[in-house]
Amino acid sequence: MNAEIIAIGSELLTPFRQDTNSLYLTEKLNQLGVEVIFKTIVGDNRQHLTAAARLAISRADIIIFMGGLGPTEDDLTREAVAEALELKLHRDPEIVRSLEQRFAARKMKMSANNLKQAEVIAGAIVLPNPNGTAPGQWLTGSSDGRQKIIVLLPGPPHELKALFEKQCMDLLRAKVPQQFIATRTLKIAMMAESQCDARIAPIYNRFVDVQTTVLAGAGEIQVHLKSRSHSLEAAQERVDQLVEKIEEELDDLVFSDNGDSLEQIVGYYLQMRNATLAVAESCTGGLLSERITSVSGSSRYFLGGAVVYSNKLKTKFAAVPPDLIKKYGAVSAEVVKAMAEGIRQRCGATFGVGITGVAGPTGGTPDKPVGLVFHALAGDRGTEVIERNFPGDRKRIRWFAAQQALDMIRRKVM
Amino acid sequence: MNAEIIAIGSELLTPFRQDTNSLYLTEKLNQLGVEVIFKTIVGDNRQHLTAAARLAISRADIIIFMGGLGPTEDDLTREAVAEALELKLHRDPEIVRSLEQRFAARKMKMSANNLKQAEVIAGAIVLPNPNGTAPGQWLTGSSDGRQKIIVLLPGPPHELKALFEKQCMDLLRAKVPQQFIATRTLKIAMMAESQCDARIAPIYNRFVDVQTTVLAGAGEIQVHLKSRSHSLEAAQERVDQLVEKIEEELDDLVFSDNGDSLEQIVGYYLQMRNATLAVAESCTGGLLSERITSVSGSSRYFLGGAVVYSNKLKTKFAAVPPDLIKKYGAVSAEVVKAMAEGIRQRCGATFGVGITGVAGPTGGTPDKPVGLVFHALAGDRGTEVIERNFPGDRKRIRWFAAQQALDMIRRKVM
Repeated sequence: MNAEIIAIGSELLTPFRQDTNSLYLTEKLNQLGVEVIFKTIVGDNRQHLTAAARLAISRADIIIFMGGLGPTEDDLTREAVAEALELKLHRDPEIVRSLEQRFAARKMKMSANNLKQAEVIAGAIVLPNPNGTAPGQWLTGSSDGRQKIIVLLPGPPHELKALFEKQCMDLLRAKVPQQFIATRTLKIAMMAESQCDARIAPIYNRFVDVQTTVLAGAGEIQVHLKSRSHSLEAAQERVDQLVEKIEEELDDLVFSDNGDSLEQIVGYYLQMRNATLAVAESCTGGLLSERITSVSGSSRYFLGGAVVYSNKLKTKFAAVPPDLIKKYGAVSAEVVKAMAEGIRQRCGATFGVGITGVAGPTGGTPDKPVGLVFHALAGDRGTEVIERNFPGDRKRIRWFAAQQALDMIRRKVM
Repeated sequence: MNAEIIAIGSELLTPFRQDTNSLYLTEKLNQLGVEVIFKTIVGDNRQHLTAAARLAISRADIIIFMGGLGPTEDDLTREAVAEALELKLHRDPEIVRSLEQRFAARKMKMSANNLKQAEVIAGAIVLPNPNGTAPGQWLTGSSDGRQKIIVLLPGPPHELKALFEKQCMDLLRAKVPQQFIATRTLKIAMMAESQCDARIAPIYNRFVDVQTTVLAGAGEIQVHLKSRSHSLEAAQERVDQLVEKIEEELDDLVFSDNGDSLEQIVGYYLQMRNATLAVAESCTGGLLSERITSVSGSSRYFLGGAVVYSNKLKTKFAAVPPDLIKKYGAVSAEVVKAMAEGIRQRCGATFGVGITGVAGPTGGTPDKPVGLVFHALAGDRGTEVIERNFPGDRKRIRWFAAQQALDMIRRKVM
């Protein structure tokens, strides 16, 4: 079976806001073996919405509408779907009662427009919304001899997710032919996409029964694998076989095969080794610390560090000799080494990291162009320095630099 | 005139990737007075794509296709659009030559599949792509007596943007009836959306000729205003009048009326006052420093700071007396005050900022629950402390905390 997702709301047709619910719904539908074949985004316009509903019902098996279920005049999803299906709406006394209770509990008077939310399409099952006033609706029927499932969901992500997870998944599972799908994701740091694909394409192309998607971001490649079979074990086995072959080829370039982020992996290894970390950042300005501490529990291995944006602070917090900065410049292998060693010693950490570079867009010179970054990792057996020239804008260069530093730590402690 | 944007690519129907080009295109189209009425996302499937093209041509004036112009079998946009329009494709010798040159310049042999990219729909203007191999195409015609504009663009954002900016904007300007549109954006920090809307809705509702969109994120509300009139001056005047009224109402809750971010505004004021800043962060783990230094040129006012995740480092880098931590706990008004004052003094900065709190999801106690954050700002006339209880997950709590600290700095230096 396949699905179409329709996101409703004029704000989703502005430059400022984007539907993100569909990523969550796609993941859930894929778990059931349902592919999404179309996504449509339509404004709060009855005619457009009715036309989009008619079309979707004609071309997809499962049609999910998100948004437009609120109490205002702009909320037209119920009316439009009913019109497309040539069905009537009726007011559900149960919903009216629950709306009244909700308002009474908050000692608020319910305005009349809220009753709109009690309108139900004939034959629909009401899906209670624990996190909001607008309930969802579930309808099944058939068209051209094919079974159709139509779902109306509220737009706010926390309402939609809770409702879909608790109520729709079971309803869908009962309707969708049982399928056995196994997925895995490999993550690779600091490798060019073309280089990666040249090495792994000959491998995954031999696994025609495993769907492989290679996605590249800044300093990270993700390889998503998916397989279907007559049993979950058989599907899992095929995916695992391919994972094994790719890991044989790429070896330690793969940092995760279970979805973990680079920050998490670094944390696992540091904890396993009872090691601690301190960092001194210049051009990344706190991004490396921010990423490390985005992991809950990171205080077990991350002591902290210094954002040494000025030369004075490089000396004060990371014990970099002023002469060294004068002689080699703040962006140099010598200074980054001193930063890593200095912060390690000052914080009493197992490992110290230093980053200094030119994030741009200004500040570049012929000698030290925008994108030049030095990274250092100091431990008890010496200090490693890596010099890189990263492409892109300020944001991208800073991200690359933090990614490179995390990968250095990973390789040291893995 | 109105537009439909069609994003093509099976990866855009996975849980892992999302079309973002359409936000850019919507902004550009809106500048010309063109509203986007539908966005459609379709996979690399000839039948689906042809159907989507036919539908879009029937319902929109301007149809923009993005993606599916590459050299592989999956790239089907040219064929599908030609089929929908019942037009033929022909091979363009000019494009063939430029492809050959491109490959020759890189000393690479051009494989035959690249010739696909030289296929042009009959009557189309070729739009050279300076950043890639696949050129765009531009077609005009009419259907049901209405003028239609059809544009094919490459999918990679840097190719699409450069091509659209340099070539499509002028072509569109010549076709679209001239309109005069003025826009402005107000940004408001640390205010609840309902509270904000209750105060400004009575104002913007009186300006029926100005389109007002209120969008709320974590700790920031954006009010987007747009007006059309017979001249740019008249449109600008109406928007400016509304801006003035809203600013009168919200006063210094508005931190920006020209699109600048809170980080930028803080930077402007600090520079204007010749003031410098140093920060000591605990629960935000570097996020505040990262946001401040995301602004190019921030080294002029940001000295740096310390990520004092451990209690020892709170003492070492921010001079917090160990007894204070023992007596009141690391998350307390007393400790945050000492952090701000300590980092200010250690760095010799005009202002010092301290943040300490419980970002969660673990580490909360009945006394000090997840979401409790203390913020301090130290200057030469004393130290201000703000205690807040933020809702949401770790990421959201950290973002709120950094936002609160930035807003404290803004209010001090504005």
